[in-house]
Amino acid sequence: MITTDICIIGAGPVGLFAVFEAGLLKMRCHLIDALPQVGGQLSEIYPQKPIYDIPGFPDVKAQTLVDNLMEQIAPFHPSFTLGERVESLERQPDGSFHITTNEQTVVHCQVVVIAGGLGCFEPRKPDIAGLEQFEGKGVAYMVKNPELLRDRRVVLAGGGDSALDWTVFLADIAREVTLIHRSDSFRGAPDSAEKVFELAKDGRINLILQSNISSVSGNGHLQEVTITAKDKTVTNLATDHLIPLFGLTPKLGPIADWGLQIDKSAIAVDTVDYSTNVERIYAIGDINTYPGKLKLILCGFHEAALMCQSAFKYVYPDQKLSFKYTTVNGVPTF
Amino acid sequence: MITTDICIIGAGPVGLFAVFEAGLLKMRCHLIDALPQVGGQLSEIYPQKPIYDIPGFPDVKAQTLVDNLMEQIAPFHPSFTLGERVESLERQPDGSFHITTNEQTVVHCQVVVIAGGLGCFEPRKPDIAGLEQFEGKGVAYMVKNPELLRDRRVVLAGGGDSALDWTVFLADIAREVTLIHRSDSFRGAPDSAEKVFELAKDGRINLILQSNISSVSGNGHLQEVTITAKDKTVTNLATDHLIPLFGLTPKLGPIADWGLQIDKSAIAVDTVDYSTNVERIYAIGDINTYPGKLKLILCGFHEAALMCQSAFKYVYPDQKLSFKYTTVNGVPTF
Ligand SMILES: Cc1cc2nc3c(=O)[nH]c(=O)nc-3n(C[C@H](O)[C@H](O)[C@H](O)COP(=O)(O)OP(=O)(O)OC[C@H]3O[C@@H](n4cnc5c(N)ncnc54)[C@H](O)[C@@H]3O)c2cc1C
Ligand SMILES: Cc1cc2nc3c(=O)[nH]c(=O)nc-3n(C[C@H](O)[C@H](O)[C@H](O)COP(=O)(O)OP(=O)(O)OC[C@H]3O[C@@H](n4cnc5c(N)ncnc54)[C@H](O)[C@@H]3O)c2cc1C
Repeated sequence: MITTDICIIGAGPVGLFAVFEAGLLKMRCHLIDALPQVGGQLSEIYPQKPIYDIPGFPDVKAQTLVDNLMEQIAPFHPSFTLGERVESLERQPDGSFHITTNEQTVVHCQVVVIAGGLGCFEPRKPDIAGLEQFEGKGVAYMVKNPELLRDRRVVLAGGGDSALDWTVFLADIAREVTLIHRSDSFRGAPDSAEKVFELAKDGRINLILQSNISSVSGNGHLQEVTITAKDKTVTNLATDHLIPLFGLTPKLGPIADWGLQIDKSAIAVDTVDYSTNVERIYAIGDINTYPGKLKLILCGFHEAALMCQSAFKYVYPDQKLSFKYTTVNGVPTF
Repeated sequence: MITTDICIIGAGPVGLFAVFEAGLLKMRCHLIDALPQVGGQLSEIYPQKPIYDIPGFPDVKAQTLVDNLMEQIAPFHPSFTLGERVESLERQPDGSFHITTNEQTVVHCQVVVIAGGLGCFEPRKPDIAGLEQFEGKGVAYMVKNPELLRDRRVVLAGGGDSALDWTVFLADIAREVTLIHRSDSFRGAPDSAEKVFELAKDGRINLILQSNISSVSGNGHLQEVTITAKDKTVTNLATDHLIPLFGLTPKLGPIADWGLQIDKSAIAVDTVDYSTNVERIYAIGDINTYPGKLKLILCGFHEAALMCQSAFKYVYPDQKLSFKYTTVNGVPTF
């Protein structure tokens, strides 16, 4: 069991910055995110795009902002559980919580901060006969650890950036990489598409265009995918892994069942401290709602600061909070 | 008369960022500040100190943050009236305002945003007989335009950074510079103090220590200061200018008389949009108060964003506001 002061659900920009504000008040944080990397929407949806409305940055690439935030919070040594989805919350007799993920990781904390953005990103699953039956047995919707694919046969499906980027990346790692795409042009970045075409020309990957996977089969573990081309030709391909990459859609998920007041798929909070209707549970960033709410990164930063001032009383019930400027007090680390 | 959409009183970090948020919604801004430079407390009190809690900056010098904000708002071409204090506000029949400064500059605007921080910085005036009578006639409490002192005789008084820095700066410009200080050590930066001692040794300035100015005299314009040393010796010194630099203290000033709801020398606002009790007047940054308020720069940024969404209806009464991400929409300048 992991023990911490504040458990933050969601490691997007707002969850990350909350670590800093908590740290200034000597509160430790553990973050859980369903994605395999930190940064939320910024890293997952638009890492290379510039953001223009982060105060003090005339422009900043989304991934650079995430990297900067990671550097800013480093003095407070946050811990992370990535690639796991928070499933349940259990109140303890003393008011604290146990939080449990889909992989049975348990975190004990005094305060829960939901910084879950648009919700948990869940993979869009293509319509392939037999697919769900091989989930975790050769079929996965994201690449958590590419090392597990070393020297294996991998089939990827999709036409966006993830499909292209992972095809290029895995070409050096896997024994055999096949990319299957329903069209003959790609939605992803033109230079990534070009790299994929080159790899195919050099015989380093198989590229199967104008085709869809129609079914999968195997004996306990995935062994074969069946490919149906637009011209109706059907072929079978032996493989160890299938990774369909058709994007992610956010879902509020299990959080919706925690007794929180929900208003249009967001969590209603009080703007005094961004607390929810359940004591010791706060919600900040895109996932909350209140009169005037704007789903902006800079607003989540403000919410994180006010939230921490309020959460302090649960972590240090006997102490009085004193407000100090960082310029005057520095960043007292731990 | 200057005409604009939004008149922002106070060009501190929060007033500056409001220009950006307003610009995204195609609203033009004019800023007025009593100080001769932009940046508010950051430029005036701690320009060279690092701030650690601006999100995305592990640390940033206060002046650098101000410079970055100026660069960020440049696409929206804000206009400025610096070195003038807003004195009065007059509602026009159509709901708009005329704002007038102590130097009779008049700004016509649809919306007033008070981003006045701790209030107007006013010079701490030393106790010198006859001083106020020569204000504007040789006596000034800040240097707005050093060129006006070229080839003139200037007496400076004080022992902090401003007194030291202006002594060094004016040594190259004025005909004769005298610095008078009550002690023989300085509160200002040691290397500035060292420079002043060196200039004195080289005969480029006069340095009179352990002394105070006791009175001033002249005939319509300042002509002479009388200096009383700690050992009671009294001397007279002919001069054209006297600049007492004993720091600034913030005062809410005339804003207190505008019918706004004041709560502990701050302006009470509604957190939905940071509006005051007077329609079309908003207050953001250190100058406002509400339950949970933190006097942090990052909070002022959030307040600026929500304020602009609300102010829009007064500037474009016939248009519907549509919310767009900068990453998607860019920064549509004007
Ligand atoms: C294309 C695009 C452009 C944008 N441009 C701008 C812009 O210019 N300026 C701006 O301010 N904003 C912009 N935004 C919005 C901005 O990205 C969001 O406001 C910001 O990401 C919100 O941050 P967050 O930390 O609240 O949530 P998110 O970034 O959404 O992160 C939430 C994280 O929580 C995780 N999570 C949720 N539920 C669970 C669970 N049960 N278990 C585990 N993990 C969970 C998710 O996996 C996710 O990683 C843009 C958004 C998009 C899509
Ligand atoms: C030593 C020190 C360290 C600090 N450290 C931090 C830190 O680490 N992090 C942090 O977030 N904050 C810090 N702060 C606080 C931070 O500086 C303020 O929150 C910030 O300056 C507020 O910005 P503002 O734009 O609201 O107001 P200000 O910066 O105060 O600017 C207001 C401006 O309005 C002008 N004004 C007021 N009335 C009038 C009038 N009638 N007419 C014309 N002009 C007027 C003033 O001249 C001033 O320039 C610190 C403050 C100090 C003093």
